[in-house]
Amino acid sequence: MPDDGFWSAGCWSAELAAARGRVARIAARTPLIPSPALSERLGTGVYLKLETLQPTGSFKLRGAANKLVRLAESAPSLGSPPGVVTFSTGNHGRAVAYVARRLGLRAVVCVSEGVPPVKLEAIRRLGAELAMAPTQDDAEALCARLATEQGLVVVHPFDDPDIIAGQGTLGLEILDDLPEVEAVIVPLSGGGLLSGVGLALRHFGPPRPVQLIGVSMERGRVMFHSLRAGHPVTLPEEPSLADSLVGGIGLDNRWTFRLVGRLATDAVLVSEEAIARAMTFMLEEHGLLVEGGAATAIAALLEAAPPTGTGRPDAAAGRNPLTSLRGVFPWRPGGPLPVPRRIVVVVTGRNVDPRRVLGG
Amino acid sequence: MPDDGFWSAGCWSAELAAARGRVARIAARTPLIPSPALSERLGTGVYLKLETLQPTGSFKLRGAANKLVRLAESAPSLGSPPGVVTFSTGNHGRAVAYVARRLGLRAVVCVSEGVPPVKLEAIRRLGAELAMAPTQDDAEALCARLATEQGLVVVHPFDDPDIIAGQGTLGLEILDDLPEVEAVIVPLSGGGLLSGVGLALRHFGPPRPVQLIGVSMERGRVMFHSLRAGHPVTLPEEPSLADSLVGGIGLDNRWTFRLVGRLATDAVLVSEEAIARAMTFMLEEHGLLVEGGAATAIAALLEAAPPTGTGRPDAAAGRNPLTSLRGVFPWRPGGPLPVPRRIVVVVTGRNVDPRRVLGG
Repeated sequence: MPDDGFWSAGCWSAELAAARGRVARIAARTPLIPSPALSERLGTGVYLKLETLQPTGSFKLRGAANKLVRLAESAPSLGSPPGVVTFSTGNHGRAVAYVARRLGLRAVVCVSEGVPPVKLEAIRRLGAELAMAPTQDDAEALCARLATEQGLVVVHPFDDPDIIAGQGTLGLEILDDLPEVEAVIVPLSGGGLLSGVGLALRHFGPPRPVQLIGVSMERGRVMFHSLRAGHPVTLPEEPSLADSLVGGIGLDNRWTFRLVGRLATDAVLVSEEAIARAMTFMLEEHGLLVEGGAATAIAALLEAAPPTGTGRPDAAAGRNPLTSLRGVFPWRPGGPLPVPRRIVVVVTGRNVDPRRVLGG
Repeated sequence: MPDDGFWSAGCWSAELAAARGRVARIAARTPLIPSPALSERLGTGVYLKLETLQPTGSFKLRGAANKLVRLAESAPSLGSPPGVVTFSTGNHGRAVAYVARRLGLRAVVCVSEGVPPVKLEAIRRLGAELAMAPTQDDAEALCARLATEQGLVVVHPFDDPDIIAGQGTLGLEILDDLPEVEAVIVPLSGGGLLSGVGLALRHFGPPRPVQLIGVSMERGRVMFHSLRAGHPVTLPEEPSLADSLVGGIGLDNRWTFRLVGRLATDAVLVSEEAIARAMTFMLEEHGLLVEGGAATAIAALLEAAPPTGTGRPDAAAGRNPLTSLRGVFPWRPGGPLPVPRRIVVVVTGRNVDPRRVLGG
């Protein structure tokens, strides 16, 4: 795999630092709170990074802000501000629509029929145009066609350095609030979030490595199988509670596949049942509505630890609970990872009909 | 009404400042986030102070922390640390139990039969002893009896300067995060929260007055009628969605009745239906589960503004939306209050069975 310069530490440090300023103009600086319930269950300190409190209800606002603010800054030299087009399972589209309205840009969002009505309605309310396609991969193709036909700038949902650096700003905030962080768990689909957080940890984090686990659902294992195969693969799309993680990574993936492959300590899978349990857990224990895509990371932690009362947590016994998850990188060298004493879970989004949480 | 020195500005400033240090040892510094949905609805800036993110799920942790940390600090000179006893609709009891466990103190919590099971279970899990009584007023009497019989220190849920100063620390945080705040809306029952926040605004806030509105439910109007009567009154307890606000203020009220009377711009009432709508609103628009007691303040704001699309918000037309609420102080001098451009709503707690929000 040739290293064509994208891995340059200096460049990514500068991109992340610049992203921080742009993102701060639009997105919230979200809180990191301790989770007594998860800490007790795991036998070690667990903290929640609450991206659910972003104005659009998900972390996707960061990448969209970085990309579009940068575009708007350069637009005066290009004449009138251009419009943008994107494809999305909903959260990225809503974020692009939100930032576009703030900046006075036209926005077109291509979506599949699998996107929940609550997300479509939010995008419409922000004044963006919706274009429908059968699947997420079809929505991506439609996005490319509209860009060419109408002269719109494509805002890729993950495979773009500006998007990656934008999502990485939440990693910078984690390091500010909890410099002693030893592990971070994030949902994993296209890999923009994991790449951004991984770069933040690598270039701004402590000298010791911070464990970084990506969690996908069994019904959306494109990145998981791509990492295992050593190259991007495609798989048929399946419906999942984690609707925001549905879709491929692109056979022509330029950035996130390689970044995830180098930055992730492991990539693991969770079942639909585990996701549903995690959604209920978050509502009952923290009063937080989280969507299925966000619940994957919580689900992995819950799967890694026995319910309270059924035995001593692994961590208390000196075993790393995260290594009990079945990952794609069991062969990574160095033996069992140490028990992380401070784990951060990124709670990525809240855009779900609450009736889906309690009805299931 | 004689002023027996309790109103001394110097004393309350010192109490609040000291409380801040003690509370920081136990409670979270909670975030203040903008509410795009409420801001749009009101036509003015609305922010949420998220006490739902406290480890015990409510702001009550602040007062309990201030009281018990102070007690523990003075305990060495008293021999072995004493136990504490309290009465509560649940949140204060859970907070006392949480702090007592952290400090190694015995805790007894007297509760009525109206306290929801989810709150009783949380108190039990923290290792506190529960004592049951038919009503909240009976629980208060039981608390006094147990204190005498067993030599326990009473931790009053609101009518105590340490509790008031502890709750006031959230007012200090609001001023730090949004110095331009022009109005604060809080749920109102015993008045500890309103008193603490009002003292913080008065002694640490801007020279111009900040509007401070307390919101009770129509089914829990003891403070409302006491303010109107000019002295504490009693009323029969009624079941309400706002279970945490049930109970009297005490005919022998020493602190909060007078403080609320002097510090509140107004005290208003909301219906059970308005509370239920506010709970659904918060879950759908912010992904936040809020209990009925917390929802009263949101309900007042929603009642003060028409649903989006049904007309121009009052604020945009130069009318103060808060004055459309029917309050106890319509006769307060000075004419209509100016439109607040930045309103903070204190979201006090999240301890409710989520099925109650969606089932109603």
